[in-house]
Amino acid sequence: MRSIGKLVIIGVGLIGGSFALAMKRAGLVGQVVGVGRSLDNLNRAIELGVIDAASQDPAQAVAGADLVMVATPVGQMGRVFDAIAPVLPAAAIVTDAGSTKGDVAQLMRAHLPEHLAYCVPAHPIAGSDRSGAAAAQYGLFEQRRVVLTPLEATLPEAAEAVGQWWQASGARVFSMRADEHDAVFASVSHLPHLLAFAYVEMVANKTDAARCFDFAATGFKDFTRIAGSHPEMWRDISLANRDALLADLRAYQAGLAQLTQWVEAGDGAALEQMFQHAREARVQWAQRFAQGV
Amino acid sequence: MRSIGKLVIIGVGLIGGSFALAMKRAGLVGQVVGVGRSLDNLNRAIELGVIDAASQDPAQAVAGADLVMVATPVGQMGRVFDAIAPVLPAAAIVTDAGSTKGDVAQLMRAHLPEHLAYCVPAHPIAGSDRSGAAAAQYGLFEQRRVVLTPLEATLPEAAEAVGQWWQASGARVFSMRADEHDAVFASVSHLPHLLAFAYVEMVANKTDAARCFDFAATGFKDFTRIAGSHPEMWRDISLANRDALLADLRAYQAGLAQLTQWVEAGDGAALEQMFQHAREARVQWAQRFAQGV
Repeated sequence: MRSIGKLVIIGVGLIGGSFALAMKRAGLVGQVVGVGRSLDNLNRAIELGVIDAASQDPAQAVAGADLVMVATPVGQMGRVFDAIAPVLPAAAIVTDAGSTKGDVAQLMRAHLPEHLAYCVPAHPIAGSDRSGAAAAQYGLFEQRRVVLTPLEATLPEAAEAVGQWWQASGARVFSMRADEHDAVFASVSHLPHLLAFAYVEMVANKTDAARCFDFAATGFKDFTRIAGSHPEMWRDISLANRDALLADLRAYQAGLAQLTQWVEAGDGAALEQMFQHAREARVQWAQRFAQGV
Repeated sequence: MRSIGKLVIIGVGLIGGSFALAMKRAGLVGQVVGVGRSLDNLNRAIELGVIDAASQDPAQAVAGADLVMVATPVGQMGRVFDAIAPVLPAAAIVTDAGSTKGDVAQLMRAHLPEHLAYCVPAHPIAGSDRSGAAAAQYGLFEQRRVVLTPLEATLPEAAEAVGQWWQASGARVFSMRADEHDAVFASVSHLPHLLAFAYVEMVANKTDAARCFDFAATGFKDFTRIAGSHPEMWRDISLANRDALLADLRAYQAGLAQLTQWVEAGDGAALEQMFQHAREARVQWAQRFAQGV
């Protein structure tokens, strides 16, 4: 497998930091340079051995890079691509870790038009409500999925190299079109995050909120875990995957209106049938998920 | 502490079974008789040592009982109370484990009018998506909360005895009015269950459902865990706590409509502010919950 002489991680958080650790452990990287806005976070990343050197200037950092991973929120990627475009080594592969892919492809086309052959949009599926360099961990990607959505212009060998590095981190690598990716992730990830945020917000605004929180237990805990996620990141995702999300939000609202009508009418049979159907789908999914299918 | 010569558990599942195990471990019970509709489940409960004897006839079982716990779905309680009313020992305490309390109080008033002094409605908060006698476990109630909602007619010593038995199981015991209880649990438990069922149902009905489930990960797993819950139980809860639930469903739908409008308008600032506010509430709650406050 091709090794990475110099790896530049722009955005040293959970994903970028854990990828750096994975490449180090696999012995696949020479030097890791971390780039970020917060000096505190970069110093922490150096202390923890996540990166070897730090910079606050992406353009300066990418000199001599073999692989540049942009692991910032999607909303910052345009500026990052602009900054590195004039100085990227000709054959440096550029990848990302964004949760939406259609918009990242568009940003690459707009801001790295000369470099598209080496652009490999990617989405490692390893969410967590933790963030920052201190959240980086060995083994984060073991058995996790990574979806690559290569551009039409992407060189197959560039996509292959990125896929192999991710495999070396323990992940299972898939490829699909950006629009397919975005529809799937609107449904299984982005929508539930929005639903969880909206739910916690509703409870927090109740007049008996304090008593409610007092009696919230494990069901509440699991259901709302993702409402502890990074607000800026989820703002960006909400905007970036707007169309797919709106379609899902509308479908969900229609389902909820139906459910509300059943509760109002006291239609126990309809409620039980829906609960049963949903439960079966959930149980089947959980079995497959536990087996890593 | 008063001990229970004969404990009758009507509905030998997670809650009833675990309560029996807790009383046995605490040395507070002579004999445990389990009552249920399924012989398989009752036999399993005997094999596992959860109960000492089984019956399919509640009226027969309660002869000589000191404590009768009705741990069936709320929808079955009326029939159970009717069946035991004529044969209950005069000073047998009757308690339940239902997730709603206003309706249980009403059922007790309607079906056990001569016995209200010994009726102690209770809600042990130890949810799980597992059910049946095989789910019964030691220690289920350690550090969990149990809310008692005594009737006006309930004798203080009956409520106190039930509270002490729950304390002996490791639980922390609270008392409040039934309507206060029901409003709180609509918000922190019943609503999220309905939201989770509706969400899984929506995904399961998508044309790309199979691909969606393929890429669902840990966020999806936690958010949907409660959609694996017992359909009949949740049908009963939805009907039993209808008014509080409808108020919350409407508040949630209003919040979701607002959120959808922000996504549609691309209002990143409004989205981020809401996410941030919800996140802070969730983080603060999680800290308190972890400390067992």
